[in-house]
Amino acid sequence: MPSIDPERMRALVAAAPVARLATIDPDGQPNVVPFVFALDGDALRAVVDRKPKRTPALRRLENLRRDPRATVLVDRYDDDWSELWWVRLRGIAHIAESGPDLERTIELLRAKYPQYGDVAMDDIAIVIAIEQWKGWISAR
Amino acid sequence: MPSIDPERMRALVAAAPVARLATIDPDGQPNVVPFVFALDGDALRAVVDRKPKRTPALRRLENLRRDPRATVLVDRYDDDWSELWWVRLRGIAHIAESGPDLERTIELLRAKYPQYGDVAMDDIAIVIAIEQWKGWISAR
Repeated sequence: MPSIDPERMRALVAAAPVARLATIDPDGQPNVVPFVFALDGDALRAVVDRKPKRTPALRRLENLRRDPRATVLVDRYDDDWSELWWVRLRGIAHIAESGPDLERTIELLRAKYPQYGDVAMDDIAIVIAIEQWKGWISAR
Repeated sequence: MPSIDPERMRALVAAAPVARLATIDPDGQPNVVPFVFALDGDALRAVVDRKPKRTPALRRLENLRRDPRATVLVDRYDDDWSELWWVRLRGIAHIAESGPDLERTIELLRAKYPQYGDVAMDDIAIVIAIEQWKGWISAR
């Protein structure tokens, strides 16, 4: 299986606008949601809106509080199957509800996504300390 | 949270070229991989190459044999955040290594993806009996 060198994996992940986060639901079922993020060294940072009472975003937070093992997939699909790749990150998540960790997350997200200028900024951070990088790219 | 009506969810999923499949690894960690699929009524069908000895594709099969609860995400990302949507499917997977179930899966995948004309056709089917549809679309 062709793999991707570490520098290239990092560049692909940093530039990707969206990723998918897999967590474990209380009943042990896998869950997966799309999310926007910023890569910050060996951490992946995201924010969650704390206002709505029950949303998939809050389920994600509850899941990570119960079991902080997070798996993140960044991938590219193309109709040309010689152009496919994916990077899978595994790490341990922590939740930051205030302080410098939250502030840095908001700052990095605002820098990456001009869209945050138009929408209310969310206010709980998920910070995933990446422990494993794994990449695959189609053989050409 | 704005949801999507069932007919529209079905149309979005049927037309999507790629989805992400979340399963549970032996150590209880969530796993997630991109995959191509065909929607067939209330089943989602995919194929896996049986030849390589150790691949993420085979890990996916092992995971589903151990715990057949599968969660599938189909989503659209767009730089315009008023154009986002996702559909999450939950179901029970079974593996078909031969017979009409495998044949039907291959037939539907070949019909959806002309790319299968150029690559070796895989030969183990994953068939997920969908039990739950859940959709979200951005408020406009």
